Amino acid sequence: MHAPDRSAIAELSREEIDAFLRTQRVARLGCHADGLTYVVPVIYAYDGECVHAVTTEGQKVAMMRANPRVCVEVDEYDADGRGSWRSVIAYGAFEELGGDAAAGTLALLRERFARAPVREGPRDLGGVVVFRVRLDELTGRAVTR
Amino acid sequence: MHAPDRSAIAELSREEIDAFLRTQRVARLGCHADGLTYVVPVIYAYDGECVHAVTTEGQKVAMMRANPRVCVEVDEYDADGRGSWRSVIAYGAFEELGGDAAAGTLALLRERFARAPVREGPRDLGGVVVFRVRLDELTGRAVTR
Repeated sequence: MHAPDRSAIAELSREEIDAFLRTQRVARLGCHADGLTYVVPVIYAYDGECVHAVTTEGQKVAMMRANPRVCVEVDEYDADGRGSWRSVIAYGAFEELGGDAAAGTLALLRERFARAPVREGPRDLGGVVVFRVRLDELTGRAVTR
Repeated sequence: MHAPDRSAIAELSREEIDAFLRTQRVARLGCHADGLTYVVPVIYAYDGECVHAVTTEGQKVAMMRANPRVCVEVDEYDADGRGSWRSVIAYGAFEELGGDAAAGTLALLRERFARAPVREGPRDLGGVVVFRVRLDELTGRAVTR
């Protein structure tokens, strides 16, 4: 993808970007701190403004606390078996959540996934970090073959 | 993925990492320059040491020329329909290629892909950038459900 035959590449509209982000499940989160660039997959839910996720304390949380400007990338390759693809690249700000906001994110994730990535309620969240990335710049591209 | 129920997460061996990188096709390349972190999908071929790819002049090439330290992330989610996943996160150095090295990368990509991402030979490579990322640190994780 993003290969040389660029002639067939179409830009996605904001509506198409939103629809795509609502259907996909795995985003790759790019963060950078102390000279290190790190890309990590996260299961997410999208509400039209933010990508919501839950994780544990660790490298990506430490990096996003140090530098909240992150990149969120979502793609789908060859879902039709003909080599078509689409990808969305967005930028945004990491926001760590607690209280009602965290409960809202957990409810959104539960609603989105039949097999919820978080099984416990917000009262059992020891070591768990609930966060969202508020997207402020989104671009999308697609090639249909 | 990388969700709270970490108990089931297994570290991949170097052999498992290599095997996984050889079967996958899309890597997410994380780069950083001038305060911007950027994640972009690339179709790649892996030779056991480097991730090889071809692209056109643009944002990611400009960023990798400015800061060649990049992150390469490859994942597969739910290939079995039960929510299993694996991911590899690697760090490495961007190397822009010309001459015989570029021809070698193009041959590797042609061999890897039945539907080759580059249709022309190296003599028609106007505007095309051939590169590899030499991986110097690789980690892999998997959850089998």
